[in-house]
Amino acid sequence: MQTTNETKPPAFKEDTILRKRMDKIKHKIAVISGKGGVGKTLTAVNLAISFANKGHENKVGLLDADLHGPCVPKMLGMEGQKLKVGPVGALPAIGPLGVKVVSMQFLLEGNEVPVVWRGPLKMRAIQQFLSDILWGELDFLFIDLPPGTGDEPLSVLKLLPEMDGVVIVTIPSEVSQNVVEKAITFSRQLNVPVIGIVENMSGFVCPECGTKTHIFKTGGGEKVANAFNVPFLGRIPLDPRVCEASDAGNPFILQYPDSPATKAFQEIVEKIKAFLQEKEK
Amino acid sequence: MQTTNETKPPAFKEDTILRKRMDKIKHKIAVISGKGGVGKTLTAVNLAISFANKGHENKVGLLDADLHGPCVPKMLGMEGQKLKVGPVGALPAIGPLGVKVVSMQFLLEGNEVPVVWRGPLKMRAIQQFLSDILWGELDFLFIDLPPGTGDEPLSVLKLLPEMDGVVIVTIPSEVSQNVVEKAITFSRQLNVPVIGIVENMSGFVCPECGTKTHIFKTGGGEKVANAFNVPFLGRIPLDPRVCEASDAGNPFILQYPDSPATKAFQEIVEKIKAFLQEKEK
Repeated sequence: MQTTNETKPPAFKEDTILRKRMDKIKHKIAVISGKGGVGKTLTAVNLAISFANKGHENKVGLLDADLHGPCVPKMLGMEGQKLKVGPVGALPAIGPLGVKVVSMQFLLEGNEVPVVWRGPLKMRAIQQFLSDILWGELDFLFIDLPPGTGDEPLSVLKLLPEMDGVVIVTIPSEVSQNVVEKAITFSRQLNVPVIGIVENMSGFVCPECGTKTHIFKTGGGEKVANAFNVPFLGRIPLDPRVCEASDAGNPFILQYPDSPATKAFQEIVEKIKAFLQEKEK
Repeated sequence: MQTTNETKPPAFKEDTILRKRMDKIKHKIAVISGKGGVGKTLTAVNLAISFANKGHENKVGLLDADLHGPCVPKMLGMEGQKLKVGPVGALPAIGPLGVKVVSMQFLLEGNEVPVVWRGPLKMRAIQQFLSDILWGELDFLFIDLPPGTGDEPLSVLKLLPEMDGVVIVTIPSEVSQNVVEKAITFSRQLNVPVIGIVENMSGFVCPECGTKTHIFKTGGGEKVANAFNVPFLGRIPLDPRVCEASDAGNPFILQYPDSPATKAFQEIVEKIKAFLQEKEK
């Protein structure tokens, strides 16, 4: 059994290979959340596309580390793709703008097949995604982690101590804030910098009359950021086009470049870039 | 390592005690989802309150089995409560209408404290929640499970083979539907009946002009129910008052008994009752 006192991951013989592969990737950023369904995958996918779109085409990787509910392939229109496995490892699937994508979904026979795995097997799968995939030379690897502070996030943060930081996604409700507090404490316990908090689903503007309704309240993300002294990255409004674009497999920042959601997202991207530049100094 | 082929849970000596405690509870229903953040806890909390409110006061239990993101205490206004532990076991905390509630949150020092546990420890915690808690004689035990098909859902469904069934909650988007398909297959693999699917966050009516917008699309829950031949229980619309009530610790069905969301919810409850009556025949 492992508790918060554990200091290193179980030693697998792939450790050296993992290091070799990961050393070729300049920046690694994980997207986490406390609660699920807050737009974590949406954030990870659009971050990857955004960086690929601005100077890093073919140089961005995206690891879908949500083994039970992998949504990255659907959101990038990559359903039905498989990983090509060769003698020295597997090749990531290639998404829009050359983004290299790895997801459990690429290894399953159908959408309806669940991954009914307990912790140890999940730890092993994550390990393999990092060590046995031929990621190649990348500028960025974004990692979409499942909600919570269990096996998958723990494994990734332990295996990649060089992680630049985590982006925490939340919705504005107080119920969500409580769980975000856990995610911040989790990151701090593991000595991973919190790049900042994104407040998603922040307000809805009626397309008919323009009235703004805060369906899930507003300001919760900023409140918890201030209370815990971590940066607040910005608010993304609710927009039916975001859901439509995701369902159709199109990153919304490419499909609706002038939407308020995209503009909000671009501001978040700029803040993450500034964080990385500051870190490199 | 355990895979889908496992046939029984690890043998703990508490097995007999667990049976003794659980045999005193007439009905057990788990609320599950594929994706997180779809309103699983909201459904579990309001199901418990609904049954307690209609003839089962003091006879309903609610187990918050989401160890990483426990939200039940907040939603029932029970924050800060602790479990009282005695020589033969711990007593559940008492919520509105005498609902007996057990949550990891009642064992933590603060909201911000994360449970950084891997699978085996989680399995053990769930086991103890069922065997070491003095639930007493109950008509119903509702179990709020974390998203996905990992350690916690697997442990609960294995430990309680007598489970009446699972209620699966989703939002209408296609991205969510894919993950719901996994949850249905998971339940079938474990021989647990699917009572039906609830489609939450189904459409938003602008409070100013009355225009209905399907922010997360509509019909996805029913579509997947039909495709997999499981009952569709109903749609709950988006309503800012649902979020407000939850944040304030008030079950929305009690605070807004005449709202469309409550009416939709009551229809779902009637269908669950009918399922249980049919089963008893």
